Amino acid sequence: MNTFGRLLRLTTFGESHGPALGGVLDGFPAGFAIDEAAIEEALRRRQGGRSDLTTPRRESDKVRFLSGIYEGRTLGTPIAFVIDNADTRSQDYSQLSDLYRPGHADFTYQAKYGHRDPRGGGRASARETVVRVVAGALCEQWLRAEGVHISAYLSQVGAVHYDDSHLYEAIHLTEGDKVLLQRRYEQVVPCPDKAASERMASAVAEARDSCDSIGGVISCRVDGLPAGLGEPLYDKLSSRLALAMMGINAARGFEIGDGFALASEYGSVANDPFVPTEAGAIVQQTNHCGGLLGGISTGAPLTFRTAFKPTSSIGREQTTCRTDGPPTSLSITGRHDPCVALRAVPIVEAMTALTLMDFYLLHRAYSTAERG
Amino acid sequence: MNTFGRLLRLTTFGESHGPALGGVLDGFPAGFAIDEAAIEEALRRRQGGRSDLTTPRRESDKVRFLSGIYEGRTLGTPIAFVIDNADTRSQDYSQLSDLYRPGHADFTYQAKYGHRDPRGGGRASARETVVRVVAGALCEQWLRAEGVHISAYLSQVGAVHYDDSHLYEAIHLTEGDKVLLQRRYEQVVPCPDKAASERMASAVAEARDSCDSIGGVISCRVDGLPAGLGEPLYDKLSSRLALAMMGINAARGFEIGDGFALASEYGSVANDPFVPTEAGAIVQQTNHCGGLLGGISTGAPLTFRTAFKPTSSIGREQTTCRTDGPPTSLSITGRHDPCVALRAVPIVEAMTALTLMDFYLLHRAYSTAERG
Amino acid sequence: MNTFGRLLRLTTFGESHGPALGGVLDGFPAGFAIDEAAIEEALRRRQGGRSDLTTPRRESDKVRFLSGIYEGRTLGTPIAFVIDNADTRSQDYSQLSDLYRPGHADFTYQAKYGHRDPRGGGRASARETVVRVVAGALCEQWLRAEGVHISAYLSQVGAVHYDDSHLYEAIHLTEGDKVLLQRRYEQVVPCPDKAASERMASAVAEARDSCDSIGGVISCRVDGLPAGLGEPLYDKLSSRLALAMMGINAARGFEIGDGFALASEYGSVANDPFVPTEAGAIVQQTNHCGGLLGGISTGAPLTFRTAFKPTSSIGREQTTCRTDGPPTSLSITGRHDPCVALRAVPIVEAMTALTLMDFYLLHRAYSTAERG
Amino acid sequence: MNTFGRLLRLTTFGESHGPALGGVLDGFPAGFAIDEAAIEEALRRRQGGRSDLTTPRRESDKVRFLSGIYEGRTLGTPIAFVIDNADTRSQDYSQLSDLYRPGHADFTYQAKYGHRDPRGGGRASARETVVRVVAGALCEQWLRAEGVHISAYLSQVGAVHYDDSHLYEAIHLTEGDKVLLQRRYEQVVPCPDKAASERMASAVAEARDSCDSIGGVISCRVDGLPAGLGEPLYDKLSSRLALAMMGINAARGFEIGDGFALASEYGSVANDPFVPTEAGAIVQQTNHCGGLLGGISTGAPLTFRTAFKPTSSIGREQTTCRTDGPPTSLSITGRHDPCVALRAVPIVEAMTALTLMDFYLLHRAYSTAERG
Repeated sequence: MNTFGRLLRLTTFGESHGPALGGVLDGFPAGFAIDEAAIEEALRRRQGGRSDLTTPRRESDKVRFLSGIYEGRTLGTPIAFVIDNADTRSQDYSQLSDLYRPGHADFTYQAKYGHRDPRGGGRASARETVVRVVAGALCEQWLRAEGVHISAYLSQVGAVHYDDSHLYEAIHLTEGDKVLLQRRYEQVVPCPDKAASERMASAVAEARDSCDSIGGVISCRVDGLPAGLGEPLYDKLSSRLALAMMGINAARGFEIGDGFALASEYGSVANDPFVPTEAGAIVQQTNHCGGLLGGISTGAPLTFRTAFKPTSSIGREQTTCRTDGPPTSLSITGRHDPCVALRAVPIVEAMTALTLMDFYLLHRAYSTAERG
Repeated sequence: MNTFGRLLRLTTFGESHGPALGGVLDGFPAGFAIDEAAIEEALRRRQGGRSDLTTPRRESDKVRFLSGIYEGRTLGTPIAFVIDNADTRSQDYSQLSDLYRPGHADFTYQAKYGHRDPRGGGRASARETVVRVVAGALCEQWLRAEGVHISAYLSQVGAVHYDDSHLYEAIHLTEGDKVLLQRRYEQVVPCPDKAASERMASAVAEARDSCDSIGGVISCRVDGLPAGLGEPLYDKLSSRLALAMMGINAARGFEIGDGFALASEYGSVANDPFVPTEAGAIVQQTNHCGGLLGGISTGAPLTFRTAFKPTSSIGREQTTCRTDGPPTSLSITGRHDPCVALRAVPIVEAMTALTLMDFYLLHRAYSTAERG
Repeated sequence: MNTFGRLLRLTTFGESHGPALGGVLDGFPAGFAIDEAAIEEALRRRQGGRSDLTTPRRESDKVRFLSGIYEGRTLGTPIAFVIDNADTRSQDYSQLSDLYRPGHADFTYQAKYGHRDPRGGGRASARETVVRVVAGALCEQWLRAEGVHISAYLSQVGAVHYDDSHLYEAIHLTEGDKVLLQRRYEQVVPCPDKAASERMASAVAEARDSCDSIGGVISCRVDGLPAGLGEPLYDKLSSRLALAMMGINAARGFEIGDGFALASEYGSVANDPFVPTEAGAIVQQTNHCGGLLGGISTGAPLTFRTAFKPTSSIGREQTTCRTDGPPTSLSITGRHDPCVALRAVPIVEAMTALTLMDFYLLHRAYSTAERG
Repeated sequence: MNTFGRLLRLTTFGESHGPALGGVLDGFPAGFAIDEAAIEEALRRRQGGRSDLTTPRRESDKVRFLSGIYEGRTLGTPIAFVIDNADTRSQDYSQLSDLYRPGHADFTYQAKYGHRDPRGGGRASARETVVRVVAGALCEQWLRAEGVHISAYLSQVGAVHYDDSHLYEAIHLTEGDKVLLQRRYEQVVPCPDKAASERMASAVAEARDSCDSIGGVISCRVDGLPAGLGEPLYDKLSSRLALAMMGINAARGFEIGDGFALASEYGSVANDPFVPTEAGAIVQQTNHCGGLLGGISTGAPLTFRTAFKPTSSIGREQTTCRTDGPPTSLSITGRHDPCVALRAVPIVEAMTALTLMDFYLLHRAYSTAERG
């Protein structure tokens, strides 16, 4: 099933080595002015920082809108768009067609569909995420007009940890931290801290040079969300975010706020006290809960982390089986990112934007009028 | 939105202190013989082990089926059932009606719905999970007839860790480990290891005696799943499981297979080699991936963990705000579990069963016939 | 699949001779004050007018709300309710268990589910519509607060036609017609005109006395709908109304506005001219289109008709087959309505209310803000 | 909302005068060999018979598949396709931009979306149905492999009625009638009878020559359906077909089997007796019910009719309002079909195919295994 969302629905299509990929974004309200430059910027961000750390496959990634936008404004009708596949060197994959790559989906696609696309990852390829980035960029614009800002960044690559507590835990960012966060894509890899970013880049380069790959963690912080988003009990904001994140290629873990660390904690520490603001509002004093209680936003920053496994395609020799059974070995020589987390940063942002805008529309629908 | 699932849909209803809770399970195939004793056993398991570690609120939890079952067999029509609320001491909550409990959903429900149920947690209470356990027990029976077995257990409570690598990582369980796993609910808390279970119980008791609460982690292992379950790209088995788990009360983290640990790992270690069996099948040699590649089951055991925060309601004094603004303090004196993870074990199993049976039905629908 | 609606969802359950029927209405906004007397009145209306024209099965039809309402107001959580089955004389059906009733669903339920409920119509019985009437009554209250009024009535029973052009075609009702319409349930059968109502009653009585049954048509008019409801292209208001009406037991035809008559018509006649009002609004001068263009409401009255076949259960002898094959004959002696259309009037209203309120919520969600 | 179906989902996009229209068909099983010539034939049929009776706008209507098909077989992934808009003479519409066309959706789109596409019907144009025809042609191939045949044809145009009782009512078609039905698209308009077809063509020509338009009825018969399709209570085959048909442009009425005529009928006549076949099966002797009882297929031919209003765009002068209020008159001079029903025949077939294949997949999912 290739549709994401309930009131705002993204349907995607396309194989990594077919003629094109694309999507249909249905449910986007009419009359919204689109910033096309921001979409191009999002696509550039997906290219993933310093070029020698990512796959040499460099699509032009030109998006063509086929419907739903007229004279720069949304019509309220489905927004369809296509990105042509230009650089599809299928021959890179010929060596792989009669064996199963360890850690790769070609084994499960074969089991499920009775075939697998011999031209690369097919539908399982991370190439599809280009569609999510385009749709997510539209939603981010809409959310920004509501005062919502989404910022994801690398907080771990292999053994390199970036201590982001000042960004992840703060109820209010300092001006310095705001600037730091805004410039995250200007670093060698998308991590706000220059030094940490460079250590991460070294770890990726080292993995690449060893014909290996490496995992990572992406943290995300959303500022400006109002209290009240989320639809209990089976469409909590927490569970829908988990669905969105765990659906990204290579995602293996997800946590909200302090997440797994809360399992070691006492309630007296984990609970976030409520305090009054000068203006008379009630807010959290700390944010262990990541801005969510009962699956509904509290008005504090929404914070969560997603863990990514290392890229499964590596140059190093591995043992596996041929599709007809006997054991064999392989070394994958195609073009592959040594660290999938590197390029997943804007995808985390895109899926967050799609999820949140959907909840905004739901919230409007169910908002309570004083009547009766 | 209070419905879970696509082809097999559970809709639940009921407030913790209203007249009753219940559910409607729609999409369950006709003609299946129901084992009512197994449902009662599941409800007993939800009571959570040694009584002094859980809430003194002890519902009889008698389930009455109103439809969908006739002479012990399913009709193919919606299976509705009700559990009456007997022991509802609403007066326990009167002290709480004019303030917000830290870490609790009454703040967000107020923000969302313009009111909150003054009689306890209302819809946000873990009391609702009794409905999931009943529906899950029906699905577990159906899955067992397909050869699928689901086993969840506590692997961490606060600082107490149970080293479950022999259970969590094994492709095939030893006979001894099978017995260990089967007896998990006979321990003082649902952890397969007697010693670990007792250390966990002590940690919970200690928290309770300090008027505090404590977090935990539940591991789950599913044996017998065939390869091919999961519906990419937006209904992966991984993402739907994440949705199911993160929707459980107090869940804060979710990971599949080695999860977050894979972020620190190299691809050459994380990839699970494929090896041939004597019978000519191809299987994983290790299970870092938790039985899922590309969001589709591989045929290896499905393994995942869910982290739970400490119960938010604690006796210890906390600072908070009154609903009309000014700061105040509170000590919660009602009946509350000091460790929500303790009672969440059968709920993890129930939500897993609902999720997997739904994927089974989807798999049947889309199965490929050789035609054309 | 036993759920109706998208944002406002009614899930129903229960067999005609099981312990109870009921429903869960999810998505109803919080804070709405419920008028319980109006629900009881709706249930009375479903009993169907003069008692000797309808089935002698007379349930008390007491509805018990189990959740979602507290101190007379909706909580925003699922509204669950149950109606116990009291008067279930299953023995009436014993003669029917080894044959198929012509025109009845027991043949198709057997084919689909591999069994059929031997205790009456089971899930296929019109008894289930009591649940729709309760849920519909809640929605009608909500719509009335929005200024929307739904009025259904019999316009045909067998050969008796009621000329309702003054009600069905008028853009604005006269005061006299308003009163006529309001009193429709005070007639011997729910038709606004006393004389027509009595002729219809005679036709039903005549059918009953011949051990036969008879068909009918229900017209419906909705006043007060704003322009703009409907979600093209696959959730038009027209198509969703058709889904709602054709899902009522024994419904066989549906038309909007002039409906089938438009097939014989020219565009120059069928088009409704637009005219300005004194207040500067633009409205239809006539209403051949039934208040819908492009599947979206125009602001004119919504008008549509639903045709019902005669009740399939009749006393007259019919030829059929035994379930094991050989031909046989039967005369059905149980309690059955000779005219299902008679009691379907409030059900048409209920399903209309559920459909329209769902579109209201969707409309709120997608409403355009001037931004960007 | 622009998605049709549950397990098999068609999402369409595109405005009539935008760069392209297209669709994404998700849920089509893997491994099915596609007949591209049959798709082209379906597109030709949509052009609507003798050219002088339909719009002079003649798109090449070349469909390009972007995904989901590889080497002539389905992959199990979304099948996306695009039809470019070539012949878009937007200037034809400039005269219409400051007024509302009677009977046309530009009034309601303006009310709903706050704008309307000034370049023609935009999303409301029947041009979108080209997408449905492509997707429907894929489903028809799949159904044909299951032994299911769908045949729609004109049974009425204005005052011209074609007596199709031998086709519509027969349980088994004669060989002659099979041939007649197969050749329906070879007639001047798609009606199986040459004489009737020519009278219909004359009626259309006459309307066109009077600068007017004319309505019509399309009958449809489906042979080869097994008993048991349909998912009560809210996804009956009858209600889903109604949704599908009433969602076609200009559809105003829908009936199953004898439909509205059953309102005048007695049960003793309307009930279809069951009779045994020589092979021991049980079948209907007549087909007043149109092959559906309780919303589930009986195994008899599925029969239904859809009524279409006359095209709203006519050359004859009409009174209307300018968008800013004052009354005005207009004569529409663009290219328009004088009879929308003429070209809707393959669209009825396409929507029927989409609906039925969806039910086939659902039926597979819920099929009962003997277990427990």
